[in-house]
Amino acid sequence: MSKNKKHTDKQVTFSEKASSSLAFKIAKRQFKNKRQKSISEYVEGILKGDRFLLSQAITLVESTRKKHQQLAAEIVEKCMPHSGESIRMGITGTPGVGKSTFIESFGLHLISQSRKTAVLAIDPTSQLSKGSILGDKTRMEKLSAHPDAFIRPSPTGGSLGGVARKTRETILLCEAAGFDSILVETVGVGQSEVAVHSMVDFFLLLLLPGAGDELQGIKRGIVEMADLIAVNKSDGDREKLAKAAKREYRNALHLFPPKESGWIPKVVTCSGLSGLGIEDIWSIVVDYKTLTRKNQFFVNHRNSQLKQWLFDTIDDRMKQLFFDNALVKAHLDRVENAVLSKKMSFSNGANILIDLFREQKPSKE
Amino acid sequence: MSKNKKHTDKQVTFSEKASSSLAFKIAKRQFKNKRQKSISEYVEGILKGDRFLLSQAITLVESTRKKHQQLAAEIVEKCMPHSGESIRMGITGTPGVGKSTFIESFGLHLISQSRKTAVLAIDPTSQLSKGSILGDKTRMEKLSAHPDAFIRPSPTGGSLGGVARKTRETILLCEAAGFDSILVETVGVGQSEVAVHSMVDFFLLLLLPGAGDELQGIKRGIVEMADLIAVNKSDGDREKLAKAAKREYRNALHLFPPKESGWIPKVVTCSGLSGLGIEDIWSIVVDYKTLTRKNQFFVNHRNSQLKQWLFDTIDDRMKQLFFDNALVKAHLDRVENAVLSKKMSFSNGANILIDLFREQKPSKE
Repeated sequence: MSKNKKHTDKQVTFSEKASSSLAFKIAKRQFKNKRQKSISEYVEGILKGDRFLLSQAITLVESTRKKHQQLAAEIVEKCMPHSGESIRMGITGTPGVGKSTFIESFGLHLISQSRKTAVLAIDPTSQLSKGSILGDKTRMEKLSAHPDAFIRPSPTGGSLGGVARKTRETILLCEAAGFDSILVETVGVGQSEVAVHSMVDFFLLLLLPGAGDELQGIKRGIVEMADLIAVNKSDGDREKLAKAAKREYRNALHLFPPKESGWIPKVVTCSGLSGLGIEDIWSIVVDYKTLTRKNQFFVNHRNSQLKQWLFDTIDDRMKQLFFDNALVKAHLDRVENAVLSKKMSFSNGANILIDLFREQKPSKE
Repeated sequence: MSKNKKHTDKQVTFSEKASSSLAFKIAKRQFKNKRQKSISEYVEGILKGDRFLLSQAITLVESTRKKHQQLAAEIVEKCMPHSGESIRMGITGTPGVGKSTFIESFGLHLISQSRKTAVLAIDPTSQLSKGSILGDKTRMEKLSAHPDAFIRPSPTGGSLGGVARKTRETILLCEAAGFDSILVETVGVGQSEVAVHSMVDFFLLLLLPGAGDELQGIKRGIVEMADLIAVNKSDGDREKLAKAAKREYRNALHLFPPKESGWIPKVVTCSGLSGLGIEDIWSIVVDYKTLTRKNQFFVNHRNSQLKQWLFDTIDDRMKQLFFDNALVKAHLDRVENAVLSKKMSFSNGANILIDLFREQKPSKE
């Protein structure tokens, strides 16, 4: 449904016979797609919950074209006062843990609780040509078909900082469109989890039954980040194994330092396939929201995250400015090699490159 | 022993009677202090293991004066090819865990193994007037008196990035001076542990016996960072408690994802006071070095850390440049408030400030 500028223009004839045909309707829609929409059209549409316009706006957010980015910036800004009314959950787990099945099950449960659910994804490895496994609608067919659900694959390419910025703005747009449950999924490898953790209220870690190999592919630090660990695939033969893993993780978790939120992380078993434990997981999230609303952590955390988004974006752009600088590019490898071979101190190396960036004569060479 | 430029100049008379007096010797030394030493004097002295010159060089590294920084940069660079021959250990733990007593005990053991030991500290809260509890020689009297030990308090003030840069350069200088065991201590609160973790080979976490309250003050994520957890104060009544804590942590640790180094983190009990377990801890560190030398992780990790130091320093200086910019300073609060009150998107806020930094007309206001 996303706006595709590669469609060829179709001539439209307005004969009565044609006007009633499906082909005409499609052509008319395509024509409408190409007509530049005003910012207020987007904003009004989003606020009314128009999924098509929401989708188009997100595409603008993700676009690398300057014109689109300017448009997107306006739209996001006008939607901002209408954002924030949601619970944001990060969901991570090893490949093979059954994330898609879980998310579908969980999403459908949320919808049954009259919640409109958006499923987003962060996958910095996702590329234009290959797409991303995350947020893949074909793996969540039932959910993607539901009018109260909205699934969007990861933004593609660029730095993790760029992907994070796009996902954050997408969260804001979805909230403005009335989605009150935002699920952001990521694979448990690389740095995405830290990024996701910085944009959600609650962090869920999905694990396989048994303990040991199952942690392969989970980056260190993520276990401590989790507000809830759910041992998935607790069905049939594996139920016993899953319960044993649950006990082990419960014992382990109480050895961790307390969380700033005052929340004590929990461990449960569940089955994305059968639906077992899904309801329980949601009520745990509700308990979390209740506790943290009460002790002000929820709103303080949202504020400090928003502030962090501002500074992360500045940081990301400063880095871009720096590494795109012609003089820096010309000297970077040389300086890096000199530092690694201990011919140059890292401090001098940094000074040389910064001076080049500032287009000053290097203070030391 | 650090160079103090606030000493008043003393007139020196060279009469034979005066020359033999202690007063004369002190005055002569003070005069020598003030004479500008050449870079090669510092470097040669450091390479010979002259602790006084090492100390002075570190003071230059820590100085905020431009002239000192330039001198320091030269000295560090010339010492670089002679750095690296050491094991670098980070030591952290809650306040009250007995870190100083442990470090003294551990340091004396290393010295008994013919190793020259430097004890450094990172404490970004340390201020010029107050000094820092860390690296406090009065708490490690025996060790600080030993000729093969070198204890240095934390650099003061500034950003964590600034403190980290100074400590890293201090590590390099100590290594050039022949110290082959570098201990970097930090308190388990704030962000220092991440910084310390980025500059050491091996990370030791000291905990108190019992599990639960003892983790108060330990930042989340640190348990997962540890290569070794030592439950301290395992003496007398507390021995049983310490051993119980050890078992719990052993069970918990095996639930964590594997480390990149291939090393399996260990848990032991010890007593800084009695010396129990100290020898064991050192042989664990030796095992770690053996394993990681064999699988190349040690050298690869040192290289990627050195590279990271370069980029961290660039990052820190770019941030300084940015936040010291007059236009940015003038508008920062306003933009921050607009973002927090959802009147402005974080992305637009970042753009506005970046444009100001680049002294361009803001693209959007």
